[in-house]
Amino acid sequence: MRIDVVAPSCPLKRDAAERVSAIVAERGDCELIIHPQCFLSAGHFAGPDDARLAALREVMADPSVDVVWIARGGYGSNRIAEAAAADLPAAASGKAYLGYSDAGFLHAAFHKAGLDVAWGPMPQDVLRSGGEAAVQRALDWMVRRDPATLEPGLGGPAMAFNLTVLSNLLGTPLEPDFDGVDLLVEDIGEQLYRTDRTMFHVTASENIRKVRRLRLGRVSDILPNDPDFAVDEAAIVEHWCKRSGIPFGGRADIGHDAQNKIVPFTRGNR
Amino acid sequence: MRIDVVAPSCPLKRDAAERVSAIVAERGDCELIIHPQCFLSAGHFAGPDDARLAALREVMADPSVDVVWIARGGYGSNRIAEAAAADLPAAASGKAYLGYSDAGFLHAAFHKAGLDVAWGPMPQDVLRSGGEAAVQRALDWMVRRDPATLEPGLGGPAMAFNLTVLSNLLGTPLEPDFDGVDLLVEDIGEQLYRTDRTMFHVTASENIRKVRRLRLGRVSDILPNDPDFAVDEAAIVEHWCKRSGIPFGGRADIGHDAQNKIVPFTRGNR
Repeated sequence: MRIDVVAPSCPLKRDAAERVSAIVAERGDCELIIHPQCFLSAGHFAGPDDARLAALREVMADPSVDVVWIARGGYGSNRIAEAAAADLPAAASGKAYLGYSDAGFLHAAFHKAGLDVAWGPMPQDVLRSGGEAAVQRALDWMVRRDPATLEPGLGGPAMAFNLTVLSNLLGTPLEPDFDGVDLLVEDIGEQLYRTDRTMFHVTASENIRKVRRLRLGRVSDILPNDPDFAVDEAAIVEHWCKRSGIPFGGRADIGHDAQNKIVPFTRGNR
Repeated sequence: MRIDVVAPSCPLKRDAAERVSAIVAERGDCELIIHPQCFLSAGHFAGPDDARLAALREVMADPSVDVVWIARGGYGSNRIAEAAAADLPAAASGKAYLGYSDAGFLHAAFHKAGLDVAWGPMPQDVLRSGGEAAVQRALDWMVRRDPATLEPGLGGPAMAFNLTVLSNLLGTPLEPDFDGVDLLVEDIGEQLYRTDRTMFHVTASENIRKVRRLRLGRVSDILPNDPDFAVDEAAIVEHWCKRSGIPFGGRADIGHDAQNKIVPFTRGNR
């Protein structure tokens, strides 16, 4: 089992890389290779677009790589996602792609292209409070597909996205087919008026309206709303589900935190 | 000339209403009626959705109203825009609709429905530094269509939107036809990584790619980006225009400020 880490958005912190490498060494059940591209820096990004794309394409094309593990979120994978999913090398299939948050742009494009992607913890999560458990969970899934690592409400085809990322990929070439899936969403660092506006946008999509149901993960680090928004994130999501005819499936065990569970993307009705 | 003010998103401040009323009284060239709905409050909004919609529909249907002047931005007009543009009363035509920012959701739907909308200053702008000039400019346009109030680069069909609002209305029933228009955008209060992400989203739209050119207004109150984004808002917009084949038309004289000019929406190639 070989796991390669690349950073399609922002740079991986050195101490995160060291701590995750130590965890893997102690486990002894897999090989972890952190691509040097993870430590590049170019403004906001872990190197220029072409360097991030080249590292990602390199590990995708390598038949000895079992899992491509996205180093962290941030912002930037959208800038290379379409190119990363084009003209796929044969070895891009038969491996898993794990990450969340900004990595959703890649997840969408890769899932659409027929690759096996999953929502779940990333190496940089080791720096969170309790983050070692998140990394162990990701490794338990990557190495032995441990069912205990999965989001507990999964009962059929599913996808998971950061809500703001999802909003920003609708209408782009990255947009996958949502027909018949459980759609799990979460968010972080937004005012509730933005969550309301994003739900308006997302639930207006005819493609999104084909989901089997929508479930809400954690919405964390909510920024102050002036004045108070008066209703909470669950009421917002239920409101827009009701207005758009999407069944609301309750809460989901995902979020920008150490408790974040794994959601392997699976196909719906098509 | 009768101008009616309604608040489809957030409440109008009392002192703004008083100051704008005083300006109008001193001018003596128009009648200003501030709908009592402007001062309602329900959480984030100027009253519940049905109250905001009812006030808007009331002034739209009134043949004695020459201009519907949106009180202010904020957030919330998207929640009532589709209903506001449905089954239009006869008197909804033959009047102008003026506002900007969040009012873009109404502008999109109303323009699509064949009504005459314009981007421009709103009553609450009187509270800005130098805001009286913005209000006088709006009145000069409403009362006598003074050409000096217009965005100086207009040379054909045009529309103007807050970039984040535009991103959130793409793919919704509000989305108008952008074919052949000059599209002017501006933004406020975003990190540059968000501006980059929003430009990715907006310029991926096949509809947006039909614009004659895209011009950039002011991007103000930019929030800190960690790390520094390395390029500025103009470079971001040029980058995405280039990637998507949209001609970049340079800067535009609009923004969330007292200098904000008028952009009457006009039709493009269709």
